[in-house]
Amino acid sequence: MSTDKNAELFELAQQLRVDAVRAADAAGSGHPTSSMSAADLAAVLLSRYLRYDFDRPEHPANDRFILSKGHATPLLYAMYKAAGAVDDEELLTFRTRGSRLEGHPTPRIPWVDVATGSLGQGLPVGVGMALAGKRLEQVDYRVWVLSGDSEMAEGSVWEAAEHAGFENLGNLTLIVDVNRLGQRGPTRHGRDLEAYGRRLRAFGWHTVEIDGHDIGAVDAAYQEVLAVKDVPTAIIAGTRKGRGVAAVEDREGMHGKPLPDADAAVEELGGPRSIRVDVHKPEDVRPRRIAGSGKLELPRYEKGDEVATRNAFGEAVTALGTARGEVVVLDGEVGDSTRAEFFSKEHPERYFECYIAEQQLVASAVGMQARGHTPFACSFASFLTRAHDFFRMAAIGAADINIVGSHVGTAIGQDGPSQMGLEDLAMFRSLHGSTVLCPSDANQAAKLVAAMADLRGIRYLRTNRGETPVVYGPDEEFPVGGSKVLRSGPDDALTLIGAGQTLHECLGAADLLAQEGIAVRVIDLYSVKPVDAGTLRTAADQTGCLITVEDHHPEGGLGDAVAEAFADGRPVPRLVRLAVGNMPGSATPQEQLAAAGIDAQSIAAGARLLVEKAVIRPGSVA
Amino acid sequence: MSTDKNAELFELAQQLRVDAVRAADAAGSGHPTSSMSAADLAAVLLSRYLRYDFDRPEHPANDRFILSKGHATPLLYAMYKAAGAVDDEELLTFRTRGSRLEGHPTPRIPWVDVATGSLGQGLPVGVGMALAGKRLEQVDYRVWVLSGDSEMAEGSVWEAAEHAGFENLGNLTLIVDVNRLGQRGPTRHGRDLEAYGRRLRAFGWHTVEIDGHDIGAVDAAYQEVLAVKDVPTAIIAGTRKGRGVAAVEDREGMHGKPLPDADAAVEELGGPRSIRVDVHKPEDVRPRRIAGSGKLELPRYEKGDEVATRNAFGEAVTALGTARGEVVVLDGEVGDSTRAEFFSKEHPERYFECYIAEQQLVASAVGMQARGHTPFACSFASFLTRAHDFFRMAAIGAADINIVGSHVGTAIGQDGPSQMGLEDLAMFRSLHGSTVLCPSDANQAAKLVAAMADLRGIRYLRTNRGETPVVYGPDEEFPVGGSKVLRSGPDDALTLIGAGQTLHECLGAADLLAQEGIAVRVIDLYSVKPVDAGTLRTAADQTGCLITVEDHHPEGGLGDAVAEAFADGRPVPRLVRLAVGNMPGSATPQEQLAAAGIDAQSIAAGARLLVEKAVIRPGSVA
Repeated sequence: MSTDKNAELFELAQQLRVDAVRAADAAGSGHPTSSMSAADLAAVLLSRYLRYDFDRPEHPANDRFILSKGHATPLLYAMYKAAGAVDDEELLTFRTRGSRLEGHPTPRIPWVDVATGSLGQGLPVGVGMALAGKRLEQVDYRVWVLSGDSEMAEGSVWEAAEHAGFENLGNLTLIVDVNRLGQRGPTRHGRDLEAYGRRLRAFGWHTVEIDGHDIGAVDAAYQEVLAVKDVPTAIIAGTRKGRGVAAVEDREGMHGKPLPDADAAVEELGGPRSIRVDVHKPEDVRPRRIAGSGKLELPRYEKGDEVATRNAFGEAVTALGTARGEVVVLDGEVGDSTRAEFFSKEHPERYFECYIAEQQLVASAVGMQARGHTPFACSFASFLTRAHDFFRMAAIGAADINIVGSHVGTAIGQDGPSQMGLEDLAMFRSLHGSTVLCPSDANQAAKLVAAMADLRGIRYLRTNRGETPVVYGPDEEFPVGGSKVLRSGPDDALTLIGAGQTLHECLGAADLLAQEGIAVRVIDLYSVKPVDAGTLRTAADQTGCLITVEDHHPEGGLGDAVAEAFADGRPVPRLVRLAVGNMPGSATPQEQLAAAGIDAQSIAAGARLLVEKAVIRPGSVA
Repeated sequence: MSTDKNAELFELAQQLRVDAVRAADAAGSGHPTSSMSAADLAAVLLSRYLRYDFDRPEHPANDRFILSKGHATPLLYAMYKAAGAVDDEELLTFRTRGSRLEGHPTPRIPWVDVATGSLGQGLPVGVGMALAGKRLEQVDYRVWVLSGDSEMAEGSVWEAAEHAGFENLGNLTLIVDVNRLGQRGPTRHGRDLEAYGRRLRAFGWHTVEIDGHDIGAVDAAYQEVLAVKDVPTAIIAGTRKGRGVAAVEDREGMHGKPLPDADAAVEELGGPRSIRVDVHKPEDVRPRRIAGSGKLELPRYEKGDEVATRNAFGEAVTALGTARGEVVVLDGEVGDSTRAEFFSKEHPERYFECYIAEQQLVASAVGMQARGHTPFACSFASFLTRAHDFFRMAAIGAADINIVGSHVGTAIGQDGPSQMGLEDLAMFRSLHGSTVLCPSDANQAAKLVAAMADLRGIRYLRTNRGETPVVYGPDEEFPVGGSKVLRSGPDDALTLIGAGQTLHECLGAADLLAQEGIAVRVIDLYSVKPVDAGTLRTAADQTGCLITVEDHHPEGGLGDAVAEAFADGRPVPRLVRLAVGNMPGSATPQEQLAAAGIDAQSIAAGARLLVEKAVIRPGSVA
């Protein structure tokens, strides 16, 4: 590359720095120094190697650029300005109310695919996109991830490194901005580029180590990684935080704050510029679209049969995959348990084995949904807690993903508490915009699998390990946000509310109580979020007391969902919640349910006590 | 080592296999094949290298043995039997109700320090123990972690590898049982031992790769790692799952189930044996104990001053560290934000920088509490979600840890949602046996820091980024499980309940309403779990309506905690919850609170509406 060209790129890099400084100064907060270290890397990428049509962010062959160091938004937005995508006026709205130019990027911006800002997530999500490009769409776009050096300490980065290396993702490039300084001081490896290189190479990557402020070296590095086709690549660039302004360059204590004297800094950087980059557009291509039959034939189960809802999930998602080509399934090395395996046998090209790496499992799903696919990511409900931060960020990024957690509650039996999903409802309920479904029988599970695929946001399905009776016919409908009243009469003394395993325990309790002449209502609250407040209100008005029963810790689950339905200032019924308040050990499923006080006998005993003590009278709202 | 000795060790390994097969057969479930692959490794370790006094599990110089592949309990319990710690009768209670020999190990067993069973946690926790041995106790015990190969895919393993390498933990040995087969099929690397070795070496480890069924090679590997003093070591052992029984050896589909014909298997393994191992006892040593002053001098703040609760935490935990030598602080590279940094300046030898690796942060705390220390682990509340599975397992293992999450809620302002703790209360409330504290002023925060250190289980403290007024005097007491009534009168029309930032918004709302002649009660619910049901009940009886206000998503937090207090079947007050139902962007703290409808004006508007519409009348229980 010519010296002239290098000089031009240097000017662009300086412009990015100037605009980063100006944006943070206008905002009075933000991360200019973390932006300045990566400006040369960004300038060369933007003007020479990125293929991106800013007018058509949906272009199927656009490269993807993920700012994993999400705090460096001043740089990202300066790049958008240089590309002509935002103007200077908008740039200076940075971090103000209503501006899409938030402190950390979100898909409110059309050129941002996923939310970042929790470090160590960019690469895992990029792996998902690269997998989609290589294995699903079969389009030759490249995924560029710009990462900080601090975040290389996150385990999720190494789950991603392993996954990318194993899948030979030659369409993925990680750019590590090794500016030596984290938030509070030096990183573990300082500017030891080889420390990062050695690690990535051990995971099967091709690495290039360069001075990230040497424009020529940066350019050569991009050329080198573009020539590598068979393995993921990393450019490990030694840089200086705050590069270009002596007052802050390579100094501690300058993280996450505007420059002390922005005007002087801009001057030191050579003043404002108005370079406009004509970003290369990608070629027109037609991505592979896998055709589905268009006709969904869900499995059908006979009433009275005993079927585990995890089996119904596996069969339903397989049928969904047959009908719809964009449905993909991912699993964390427990597909034989979650029954995701059923899908793998029928649609192997759309099945992604993520091994025991739940963060990467969920990140892959997030990356794939950003490319228009409809992922179902599956593991034990208990192990999904591993990916909580990825769910949190997925919600912030308005990602549309389906999550399936099997082996819930004490009902799994002998394996003991480490394998029991006992916090999953709380975790998924607390995510913004989530849907939480807890099917109680196989036909319902199948219908909900089909329904969830078309919802927005994070949709969670909770499935059981053990078999439970089929209580609904295969043609029954189960709207999300609905419920089913399975026992009801004018003399109901109270209402039992269950879902999943506990619905069957509630039905058993109702039978026991009926033998004693005590009529109770039973509600199947399969939709935990949104919850069917209307039916609950009616039951409250008519029976006066609601007992929730859940195979989950007492906090954040079914009981809370029901309570929340009454948090509208209107009269509240008497509420009792039965949940797993003990710490289980090993025991049979029935012993576990009894020990937790959520089996039919325990429920009946509690209800009987309430009725006998005359605490409850039919129809009496407290 | 002599051939005779090898033959003896082989016999012991066969005994471990036989007992593993018998235990799983008696239970009708369990993981004998995963036990059999590691039997030779375990036999040699137990009889020749482990230093452990089974009669004195609290011995300060005992080695620690962590079964990271926690499903291989048949092997662990067979080892206990060989060591004379459990008898054959108890062995055969495996996985039955009431037996301490659960499906996965927990500290109900005196020789188990931490619960395992969620893969990829043993090494991180072992790093915490090794750090304690090296830097705190300065005792020469060794931490042995027996891991599966599947779990090497977990990012947490690589956070641990990085931490151990950086800290030169020569007292830590990882034994990887590379049996090639995960739950559902082959692992990524099969029996490619070098794949694991290369990765670990890149992280600064010394590795030995061996045939894990060659007793002589196993013995030599232990000798080799014991000779390495300056870096962590790994024995990477190629093995065969189900080793020794042809019907299952190295075969897929044999994971997690008893052997098809246990009697034949036992016979094939040479029948039962009754070898008793005299495990080497450690030398008597006196661990270093860091002396504290014994006198706690908490910081004191003046009423009316503006102080961030995170600052009060930092100052209080520093004072606690001065008073008590066993207090240690860990942080995830945000100590300048969480204010853990204050402690690091005063007590650098007890401060552990964990960099941006929240799983390892929490695992280190778990490991250290197992060694008798009192850890406080700190990060942004939002990023603690990264460690959810470690909290879950810590609760199962009854670990005593203090966790501090800063930068909660929308009140952090411009940084936007990725940095806001909006799910933390839900996550921590749903953990078994947890305590959740949300201090509202600096004096209260300081007192709660002192109180939490002496509780059991997981104690969570939620701190604010921004300054809030000091409303309590420095001598006020704040019992865990209590609350404070800050406004109260006979004519209270309703009750406002807040904690942290929202308490101050509630007080502001009360002032606004008072100007209009509407009296309201205000409760500071600083103890979110356990919750002060008595005070809430009184407020409900006297004012008829409770409005909860929280800077948190609507699910699982303060509103749920209050609702749960009324889930006792007695009459329930009218409940209204104000929480962050929107997805915030960037804005100032006050704009954020207003946008979420949880600032003083919004609270007052809601209360006014309820009163004006005559929905609420003072003293009227619905």
